[in-house]
Amino acid sequence: MSDKTASLKDVAGAAGVSVATVSRLLNGSLTLPEETRKRIEDAIRDLNYRPNPHARRLSRGRSDTIGLVVPDIANPFFATFVAAVEAEADSRNLAVSLFATLNRTGREVAYLELIERKHVDGLIFVTNHADDGQLATHINQVGKVVIADEDVPGADVPKLFCDNEQGGYLAGRHLAAHGHREVLFVGSPQEMISGLRRFDGLRRALREHWGEDIVPASYRGNYTVEFGREAARRFIAEGMPSTAIFATSDEITIGIIEVFREEGISVPGKVSIVGFDDVAPFHLFAPSVTAVRQPVRDIGRRSLALLLETNWQDLASPAPQELMPVEIVVRESVAPPAKR
Amino acid sequence: MSDKTASLKDVAGAAGVSVATVSRLLNGSLTLPEETRKRIEDAIRDLNYRPNPHARRLSRGRSDTIGLVVPDIANPFFATFVAAVEAEADSRNLAVSLFATLNRTGREVAYLELIERKHVDGLIFVTNHADDGQLATHINQVGKVVIADEDVPGADVPKLFCDNEQGGYLAGRHLAAHGHREVLFVGSPQEMISGLRRFDGLRRALREHWGEDIVPASYRGNYTVEFGREAARRFIAEGMPSTAIFATSDEITIGIIEVFREEGISVPGKVSIVGFDDVAPFHLFAPSVTAVRQPVRDIGRRSLALLLETNWQDLASPAPQELMPVEIVVRESVAPPAKR
Repeated sequence: MSDKTASLKDVAGAAGVSVATVSRLLNGSLTLPEETRKRIEDAIRDLNYRPNPHARRLSRGRSDTIGLVVPDIANPFFATFVAAVEAEADSRNLAVSLFATLNRTGREVAYLELIERKHVDGLIFVTNHADDGQLATHINQVGKVVIADEDVPGADVPKLFCDNEQGGYLAGRHLAAHGHREVLFVGSPQEMISGLRRFDGLRRALREHWGEDIVPASYRGNYTVEFGREAARRFIAEGMPSTAIFATSDEITIGIIEVFREEGISVPGKVSIVGFDDVAPFHLFAPSVTAVRQPVRDIGRRSLALLLETNWQDLASPAPQELMPVEIVVRESVAPPAKR
Repeated sequence: MSDKTASLKDVAGAAGVSVATVSRLLNGSLTLPEETRKRIEDAIRDLNYRPNPHARRLSRGRSDTIGLVVPDIANPFFATFVAAVEAEADSRNLAVSLFATLNRTGREVAYLELIERKHVDGLIFVTNHADDGQLATHINQVGKVVIADEDVPGADVPKLFCDNEQGGYLAGRHLAAHGHREVLFVGSPQEMISGLRRFDGLRRALREHWGEDIVPASYRGNYTVEFGREAARRFIAEGMPSTAIFATSDEITIGIIEVFREEGISVPGKVSIVGFDDVAPFHLFAPSVTAVRQPVRDIGRRSLALLLETNWQDLASPAPQELMPVEIVVRESVAPPAKR
């Protein structure tokens, strides 16, 4: 095959249509008469045209590709986040290269290096493990990184989180209004801002309602179904010391509900539950699950906008941090505390 | 920064440990004494070592990177598939570049070209729209592609599907055994093998059970929640002409159940439902949903194995096609037909 790359203009000329028409056909945003479409496709074939951001990159010295680094794509929260970034990038004619780190620092660092190698123009970076400083160092070195969802302390780049504290507060206020004072927090360690701020919000709501220096009990672990299951088993083994549980991710919530079902523990008859994320189809569960909803798609879209809009040559220090609003979606998993 | 790249050996030498130890630390597969770990990390920093498959690529003339092309990452089925490929690639020390096509031919073709440009060593390719021949032509041109999940007819490369016909058969047999003869098929068009084969399997089971030339009714559309909702509304508008529905994806199933809930139509009291995929948390739904389960993670793992094991210099024609077994997971959404 020839190394000479035909341009969009060559294709348009050969097909006798405008460049905009070819471009929009390739983007799928235009429906053309069959005959016109065929003429363009023939021209594309004949000229061996490659409608490819990576081809453009070669000619323009930019990749027109955004890198997106997430811990685990099988998690529907991250999958939805990624899809939102993809859609936003597509609308701006950018390609996205996606990398899953499995939460390993070695892989995270490797993907950060892609910026230096010009494989991507910038990175949206999501991690959900605590950092010992190594990640922050690398991020500050490579620049052009937007951190989303979970913090990397010490990294001085733009950051975008959901309003975790407000989310915890909404959960706590809803539970307190139903009469719950002993609420178990199940979530990530205090070293993670999600674990810290959601807990702080819960505590603030409970103190506000009950007028006491309440410190909610907490089980700390990973945002996984398995940790949810562990937490539920521990909760049962400890004699169910709380009347309600604030389960701070979809996966944790699912794990807890699975074990409660197996053990015949009624929700909300025996224990009330408020979840967090609300990406899972909680509305179809039995009972449907009340949860704090993260604006996952908005966070995805806004992350890309931040990456593109930031003036990287003249970045303020500390770099800006944005919080996206959360809401509570009330369903059926909260009721007044069971009589002891 | 220097362009000179330090090797793993340099790092190991500077830290006074073996190459294997450094490598395993970076892979996260080894827990070391704090002091040893720090020594290695200092060496990495001092030498500016980049534990990066893309760096290796530059030195070895291969990318050590697999491309993975899927329609839509927000769909948990694809997300789970991708995660399985990621995990398998990681265990083989390969990187994965993931691309979402949003089901647009222009983007699909662009990503296929990555192979020719040596950005990736090979591609696992998933599409879920019908092809007019354009995709097949490109795939045959670039080679080194494994097609998974849904067919691209005319593409002569290794292919891997779930056993769609058997899945349809299992659903049909389960419904027939409960007394259902009028079963509505809700799924993709006949041009897609999933739509064709799942329907064929359903029909075979119903004919086998009832000894008649039954042709199930069918509504055809996309594997989306929105199409599931449309199908449910049409089903109601047509006076609920079947006693059971075979909903051939998680998303379709969710859409149908949402509308039935809103309209107060009892499952399985009024209509029985069998789903397909079983990636969604159907076990926690009310009622829990009986579904044909795809071995999604196995399909992901096996796709990568096929890509790596195939002798591309000497590929048989037609290229091999593999089917992965499915099973039916029986829960609570099927009961005998309601009295009319």
